[in-house]
Amino acid sequence: MTRILCFAGSARRASLNRKLARVAAHAARSAGGDVTLIDLADYPMPLYHGDVEIEAGIPSQARDLADLVRSHSGLLIVSPENNVSVSALLKNTIDWISRIKDAPAFSGKVAALLSASPGPFGGLRGLYHLRAILNSLGVEVLAQQFVLPRANAAFDAEGRLADPQQAEQVQRLAARLVDVVARLGEARG
Amino acid sequence: MTRILCFAGSARRASLNRKLARVAAHAARSAGGDVTLIDLADYPMPLYHGDVEIEAGIPSQARDLADLVRSHSGLLIVSPENNVSVSALLKNTIDWISRIKDAPAFSGKVAALLSASPGPFGGLRGLYHLRAILNSLGVEVLAQQFVLPRANAAFDAEGRLADPQQAEQVQRLAARLVDVVARLGEARG
Amino acid sequence: MTRILCFAGSARRASLNRKLARVAAHAARSAGGDVTLIDLADYPMPLYHGDVEIEAGIPSQARDLADLVRSHSGLLIVSPENNVSVSALLKNTIDWISRIKDAPAFSGKVAALLSASPGPFGGLRGLYHLRAILNSLGVEVLAQQFVLPRANAAFDAEGRLADPQQAEQVQRLAARLVDVVARLGEARG
Amino acid sequence: MTRILCFAGSARRASLNRKLARVAAHAARSAGGDVTLIDLADYPMPLYHGDVEIEAGIPSQARDLADLVRSHSGLLIVSPENNVSVSALLKNTIDWISRIKDAPAFSGKVAALLSASPGPFGGLRGLYHLRAILNSLGVEVLAQQFVLPRANAAFDAEGRLADPQQAEQVQRLAARLVDVVARLGEARG
Repeated sequence: MTRILCFAGSARRASLNRKLARVAAHAARSAGGDVTLIDLADYPMPLYHGDVEIEAGIPSQARDLADLVRSHSGLLIVSPENNVSVSALLKNTIDWISRIKDAPAFSGKVAALLSASPGPFGGLRGLYHLRAILNSLGVEVLAQQFVLPRANAAFDAEGRLADPQQAEQVQRLAARLVDVVARLGEARG
Repeated sequence: MTRILCFAGSARRASLNRKLARVAAHAARSAGGDVTLIDLADYPMPLYHGDVEIEAGIPSQARDLADLVRSHSGLLIVSPENNVSVSALLKNTIDWISRIKDAPAFSGKVAALLSASPGPFGGLRGLYHLRAILNSLGVEVLAQQFVLPRANAAFDAEGRLADPQQAEQVQRLAARLVDVVARLGEARG
Repeated sequence: MTRILCFAGSARRASLNRKLARVAAHAARSAGGDVTLIDLADYPMPLYHGDVEIEAGIPSQARDLADLVRSHSGLLIVSPENNVSVSALLKNTIDWISRIKDAPAFSGKVAALLSASPGPFGGLRGLYHLRAILNSLGVEVLAQQFVLPRANAAFDAEGRLADPQQAEQVQRLAARLVDVVARLGEARG
Repeated sequence: MTRILCFAGSARRASLNRKLARVAAHAARSAGGDVTLIDLADYPMPLYHGDVEIEAGIPSQARDLADLVRSHSGLLIVSPENNVSVSALLKNTIDWISRIKDAPAFSGKVAALLSASPGPFGGLRGLYHLRAILNSLGVEVLAQQFVLPRANAAFDAEGRLADPQQAEQVQRLAARLVDVVARLGEARG
């Protein structure tokens, strides 16, 4: 069974990216994935600081999240765009996890990226940065991605994508992720 | 059998990237790949021009190269860095092939990227651009890549990498490509 | 007087980017610039090839264009997006000019970038690549840029931007270029 | 007098980037700049969170830092590379400041970027991301930048760059910043 870990890079309760994460998680389940949808708000960490790391060690929340990443083969990441890059929350979370050097959590995982934004580009620019960050950690990032422009008006009352074409695109991306994860398994990079 | 198409983005006879392409092709063969090593100099095309396309059609060399891409599942591309981006030759070749809309050649292929340069960064910056270009065409580009800084002094008299660690890195990348291609097969994106 | 050289990265007769170049040139003139609008189709060059460079030298068209760049302080470049990057034509033109090592044409110039595309992102992704290429050659590229999505429907019968807000944005960008060029003069980087 | 604000994107006491910030500040003073060297550790902020912003407002440290940015015309930023991107600390700081919408602190400023890293690329990849982030906020980022590879061995006992060529490059970059800031003044983008 292909285990997919899904989360948004925002902790804001009304976040459009968290809405999209729920849509993506549902799509990955429909595609046969065993999906764990988590909330980064449940893994609060201090801002990364080299001296804090030496004095207090890596936060237990980072270790817990790393364990979770390790126990899944696929990542479904819905990343808000803040100033054309990833959120400080997502960067901080990834940076802390990457400090666990004895058992790299990310290497060899497969990821699909999505983004929602109220603007016309749908978070496209932030995904460039996230893609580079994940690649550097050995994550295979699918070529296909999904961006949702004008996301304020994109969801219906049930939290689904109102536009069937967009819903179909998310479904196709999720299915691609499940398929590639199933084929690659734990083949480390 | 996993068919890998290997080429450099330079047509210069003494090109360091063509040297590295030979090393990479050899590595992919050692890893069990069925490798076709070609030379872009054998596929001369005019500079892409929209009016030329309408009046004269897509050049036969672009169609031949597209057929070759289609008949392989993996790409091993050794890309020179010109002004921190890809060579005009490589960009032009990819752009012409991408105009064949009825039968996209690139979509669903898996690629590994390498680069050689006389400078300290080994062509790293150009690979950022190539990665984005290929992703946009539906090519899955491996997270792992290989850059060869100070490439002028990197090859021995037989054209092999003098540094065993670098040779090992190319071998590992080629093996990863062969493995991923074998697992993904023709699973289209 | 601030001399601005304006051109599009496409040679296609009906190119949307050439249309936008005319709009941008007009805007820069309104802002008090002394604008030269040229057409890359008048500077045909072979695809860059290192052996051709050694055997036949740098094409006279590249030298002419370099002279033109040198005699202007500002660049107004309207860059089509081909496969999320710059056109092969623009890359080839820049690469040839950059081979004139005894008298770098680009270093210290100030550039404003624009792009038009029929798609929803307006050529945004290609400008990332162009910006990096120009920066590496010592060109100061203004932070502000202009992208024109759905450019097929953006021009009126006289070739002006139908949307007054977009026209205003181009005007503001052109004025910023003229102002910065006037202030920086030929202060080399 | 050209006021330059200088800081590193790391708060670690022994940070190589803080060392390089001191070198850069000194160089900018030598070039005639009125330099304020600050330490982001003195401006501790919580991780950006949209709900926290609504409930508790923008932290006073972000407002103080924004005031400081506003009272300077040039920025000299020394940015560590964490996972090929900017530090979470720097991203978080910029993101908070950018939330002050009534009086944008960054727009129209001129920045020079530097980076130090123990690795062979000197933080080059992270500067790509920082450049895009700052550009999006209306900061003019100089084409020229300085990266310091193998930074562990680059400083002498007095904290100066041991290699005179590197020292000269930093001096040239700082002088360029002072010159451009003096010429552009507060010309807003």
